[in-house]
Amino acid sequence: MKGTDVKAIRTITRDGIDGLEMRDLADPTPGDREVVIRIKAASINYRDLLLVNGHYPGCFEGEMTPLTDGAGEVVAVGAAVSRITVGDRVSVNNITRWVAGPLTPTVMVNQPGIFSDGMLASMIAVEEDGVVILPGSLSFEEAAALPCAGVTAWSALTDGGRPLRAGQTVLLLGTGGVSLLGLQFAKAMGLRVIATTSSHDKANRLKAFGADHVVNYKDTPDWQEAVRALTDGKGVERVLEVGGPGTIERSIASLAYGGHVSLIGFVGGMEGALNPLSLLTSGVSLQPVGIGSRTQFEELLQLIDANGVRPAIDRVFAFNEFKDAFAHVASGSHFGKVVIAVD
Amino acid sequence: MKGTDVKAIRTITRDGIDGLEMRDLADPTPGDREVVIRIKAASINYRDLLLVNGHYPGCFEGEMTPLTDGAGEVVAVGAAVSRITVGDRVSVNNITRWVAGPLTPTVMVNQPGIFSDGMLASMIAVEEDGVVILPGSLSFEEAAALPCAGVTAWSALTDGGRPLRAGQTVLLLGTGGVSLLGLQFAKAMGLRVIATTSSHDKANRLKAFGADHVVNYKDTPDWQEAVRALTDGKGVERVLEVGGPGTIERSIASLAYGGHVSLIGFVGGMEGALNPLSLLTSGVSLQPVGIGSRTQFEELLQLIDANGVRPAIDRVFAFNEFKDAFAHVASGSHFGKVVIAVD
Amino acid sequence: MKGTDVKAIRTITRDGIDGLEMRDLADPTPGDREVVIRIKAASINYRDLLLVNGHYPGCFEGEMTPLTDGAGEVVAVGAAVSRITVGDRVSVNNITRWVAGPLTPTVMVNQPGIFSDGMLASMIAVEEDGVVILPGSLSFEEAAALPCAGVTAWSALTDGGRPLRAGQTVLLLGTGGVSLLGLQFAKAMGLRVIATTSSHDKANRLKAFGADHVVNYKDTPDWQEAVRALTDGKGVERVLEVGGPGTIERSIASLAYGGHVSLIGFVGGMEGALNPLSLLTSGVSLQPVGIGSRTQFEELLQLIDANGVRPAIDRVFAFNEFKDAFAHVASGSHFGKVVIAVD
Amino acid sequence: MKGTDVKAIRTITRDGIDGLEMRDLADPTPGDREVVIRIKAASINYRDLLLVNGHYPGCFEGEMTPLTDGAGEVVAVGAAVSRITVGDRVSVNNITRWVAGPLTPTVMVNQPGIFSDGMLASMIAVEEDGVVILPGSLSFEEAAALPCAGVTAWSALTDGGRPLRAGQTVLLLGTGGVSLLGLQFAKAMGLRVIATTSSHDKANRLKAFGADHVVNYKDTPDWQEAVRALTDGKGVERVLEVGGPGTIERSIASLAYGGHVSLIGFVGGMEGALNPLSLLTSGVSLQPVGIGSRTQFEELLQLIDANGVRPAIDRVFAFNEFKDAFAHVASGSHFGKVVIAVD
Repeated sequence: MKGTDVKAIRTITRDGIDGLEMRDLADPTPGDREVVIRIKAASINYRDLLLVNGHYPGCFEGEMTPLTDGAGEVVAVGAAVSRITVGDRVSVNNITRWVAGPLTPTVMVNQPGIFSDGMLASMIAVEEDGVVILPGSLSFEEAAALPCAGVTAWSALTDGGRPLRAGQTVLLLGTGGVSLLGLQFAKAMGLRVIATTSSHDKANRLKAFGADHVVNYKDTPDWQEAVRALTDGKGVERVLEVGGPGTIERSIASLAYGGHVSLIGFVGGMEGALNPLSLLTSGVSLQPVGIGSRTQFEELLQLIDANGVRPAIDRVFAFNEFKDAFAHVASGSHFGKVVIAVD
Repeated sequence: MKGTDVKAIRTITRDGIDGLEMRDLADPTPGDREVVIRIKAASINYRDLLLVNGHYPGCFEGEMTPLTDGAGEVVAVGAAVSRITVGDRVSVNNITRWVAGPLTPTVMVNQPGIFSDGMLASMIAVEEDGVVILPGSLSFEEAAALPCAGVTAWSALTDGGRPLRAGQTVLLLGTGGVSLLGLQFAKAMGLRVIATTSSHDKANRLKAFGADHVVNYKDTPDWQEAVRALTDGKGVERVLEVGGPGTIERSIASLAYGGHVSLIGFVGGMEGALNPLSLLTSGVSLQPVGIGSRTQFEELLQLIDANGVRPAIDRVFAFNEFKDAFAHVASGSHFGKVVIAVD
Repeated sequence: MKGTDVKAIRTITRDGIDGLEMRDLADPTPGDREVVIRIKAASINYRDLLLVNGHYPGCFEGEMTPLTDGAGEVVAVGAAVSRITVGDRVSVNNITRWVAGPLTPTVMVNQPGIFSDGMLASMIAVEEDGVVILPGSLSFEEAAALPCAGVTAWSALTDGGRPLRAGQTVLLLGTGGVSLLGLQFAKAMGLRVIATTSSHDKANRLKAFGADHVVNYKDTPDWQEAVRALTDGKGVERVLEVGGPGTIERSIASLAYGGHVSLIGFVGGMEGALNPLSLLTSGVSLQPVGIGSRTQFEELLQLIDANGVRPAIDRVFAFNEFKDAFAHVASGSHFGKVVIAVD
Repeated sequence: MKGTDVKAIRTITRDGIDGLEMRDLADPTPGDREVVIRIKAASINYRDLLLVNGHYPGCFEGEMTPLTDGAGEVVAVGAAVSRITVGDRVSVNNITRWVAGPLTPTVMVNQPGIFSDGMLASMIAVEEDGVVILPGSLSFEEAAALPCAGVTAWSALTDGGRPLRAGQTVLLLGTGGVSLLGLQFAKAMGLRVIATTSSHDKANRLKAFGADHVVNYKDTPDWQEAVRALTDGKGVERVLEVGGPGTIERSIASLAYGGHVSLIGFVGGMEGALNPLSLLTSGVSLQPVGIGSRTQFEELLQLIDANGVRPAIDRVFAFNEFKDAFAHVASGSHFGKVVIAVD
């Protein structure tokens, strides 16, 4: 790999988007069980903004390459690599050593883009354990949209609680990445979807993506009652709870007896609380979602490939427009993932 | 319910279709936990022919009303009935006391159409435990097509083995009721489907029902190799094994490592055997399917209603054409369920 | 059954134990799917006191026979009963129509001792669905101790969350019926047990019942830290959370990453709340326990029989000492179940 | 690690035990994600004899160090190792990259003692993924007895079929390593055990290990009938099927309706077959056991540590007695694992 110029965006300071700069780096050399990927596209999640702004607890604090989500082509493999070959089109699971089974502390150690250099570079080395092979039907831009929000949505739909059956109903909150990708996956799985949003315009876009019903939570502050009414009083079987403490009581009140809360995030703020007695009377179970294993990412790729899902992308920025891309995510005006084409 | 004329088809002798005759019966009175249904449609399964021909081991051997599958409207309920109301549009689970959980010998006692009077009558009494409420989107004819073959296909797709994920591939053998309904449900669930059949014409009809690939087993006797080729050598995740001992070795050879055989029937005959070593090397699990519980039937109705599935019906016969209906099933020329409209 | 004198304790008023009186009742006649049991023993749970005191929300409010837990001998069976025979030694599941699978609203309708007459009578009729056959090794007194607290403890140990493996550690709070029976069952299952209590004396008794470690929560108000220390900092795999909102934050802090809260009761009061963010960081799941199905009760009886468990009984009162028995439960001084021998 | 003398037993030829010789090897250097273990004990499984005799299909065929099972102390770790520290007392999972979840072809690549150098050496390098930390209660000799037979028995008891509950009954065939360790684990889990054997003497030893019942299959060739009789005609919930095609029909006939066959081996020979119709009528499921993941090994160590299990060892040979050790296994006269102390 001599002679290659590796370009990477680096967190020179942690005081916001202007602390990011493009730098030349030495060529990566793969460890025994690592592969080197020429990155073609990367995508931004909200937590990447926190990291760039110095507000992400526990992350690496020195100069680093940000972004956990990317896709590209393998250009070199280490001596003990067995599954991956030079030329493979790939993406990378956020928690690289989490191959299968439930999340455990021992696999949390390696998370590129959080504890070590991430995807916003023309070339990176990552552990083979986390590398997934892309189906031919998926572009690099689409694949880069999946590792964090997509895998989270998939885990939240397929893991925890009683198994969700095709034909049952899932409640999705808002139009963030997890909810929007979750809508696409849920429809491919044969689920009914009720979505919430705050504007008539977004409601129409959600319906265009397949939502069976949309509830405007500004018009209907007690949206849990609307959700129950849309299910003949029964309630939904599952909610992908991205709102956090501020919405969880309403989410639980939206559920059918024995339903399940997939606990994901807290875009609605960190204040609020839940009296567990509301679970006792509703039979509702809760389980947090820690993104997902490589196996879950591979399952998701099967779903997408078999059902022709096109992951919702809001906009693709050029590599040298990386600051605009971060600013676009910060603006909150996007509907779908924000991607940077890397070259 | 005085004054109602109950007409029922009865097994006067057990020497074939001509042993069936229409008779007048007394009005049924519901037991404490029974409901009376005015039957609107019933459907015929292959095992009903065996019963009529005197070849069904273990069934009631006296004069009885045949058919396990039907649908209609509730006209009376017993004193201790809690879930069902007069006027409900309903169907009946084959094993009436099997409400939820795995099949156990204790719930096998009551099976209308096998151990006691079945559905081919204008009115019958059945235990509330087995009664399912139909979604408005389903006609009585369509609902009558489901209890045996439909619930079996659903259980075979959702129970046993590792959970089958949307996007994975299922293998369906032939064009019998379980395989054809299984095809419709599998597509609604977002699964890929490979089907086998013996004619170019049926292959086209399977594709029209959504099969992703069809293998002609007459042209390709080693069809398991074609199945593997269609999955890039990997194999399918599950097979709905309706062929029995004669096809099971090929079915196992069609499966991906760790795949699952849902063991259903033996339309290919009862001769043949399986060396379990083939399971050890392929990691394949087997589990028999005993139709399904009422809960599974209810889940299936959700799937059908949410996804607009129209259960494949070959032909609807009038009540007084019941002998023609049985003869049509015996001919084996049908593609979809054979239904009798009851009035 | 003519000539039998049925004696029953009745809730003449709902203003406390003195509102209970013994009365003669007519002989019960079994419905089609009911059995009549000559009760030999019944046991009192805390919620029975609430009912007698008029503080149990949703229960039947007229004159009734209290107690949900009992055991006895079958003396008559209805016409459609298939599993149970006259002479069987039996107990009754609290939710009689909950046979298997998860709890659903439709099976909640019948709960003797809450919505209809309960066990504190010399003879009662109950639905066959809920009747379990006792192993010969269990006395009627011991069997009567199980239906509510025992089945709850069993469900809490075996249902929800990741499967609890023999060798893992469960945390039990206090010395109530669920915790004490849970301790006995957990040890028979090969689990490690950490228990909490408030006195040195009770700690010794817990150790005599097999607790591996006991933490005194009066001496150690931050008992969750002691629990972690006893597991080398890792935390326990499951907690049977009987304390409610007041203890749940400490219970979660006692759990290993990915551990599970079996949510049972609120003996610690109904005030308090949980910020769901504590679940996100700990990977902890929650699931409420709704007592259990008849199948779970039958599994529990297998456990007890195979392992020679003797359910912890504090004291057996004579039938005519029923007021003393209730008063003893109200005193809170018991260690083990309080049973009334019925004759 | 310069200056260390590594002694290893090597397969100089593959024509039997006499083809084995002790050799000096260079010191192992750990790869990035490998650890170097000073082996203290190793144990022999029947398949190791096949390998030494040149009859193990698919294994490495050149000169190699045999044995898949061992235990020792970590003396060096690679640069990217995160879970393991120098000084840790450890053993190694047979399939080193199988960390969690079901077995997949991609993790099968690395199996020390089959595809690459194994445990019968004073020092070896293995991938961190497969390394388990031993509880202090377990000696190196005891730990070395577990990786193949012990983990297989544990997986067979805890994986596949309906979850096996404490109090249910498992059938174990003969006195091989899987069956004998399975007996010890089953009793620690609160299971009832029925074992089969061929001699009065072995029957007594099985009872001393805790077997509830022993059936002599020489005296009782139709032993499945004896098994049913010992369970009141109901049958057992699970069988650890080590016999193979020659015993599987009897094993299935020993099972309760809905029971499970954990398919393990074929000590009874490779001839024989199974008509799958016997599964349809008995509701019995089958699943092969591919040893187990590192997570399953870790669970097993918890079980052993918490319950004071002492893995059954027949005899410990000195390092230079390695040929006697292999010959002792070949003789078939052992009862418990055959271990070699390595120094």
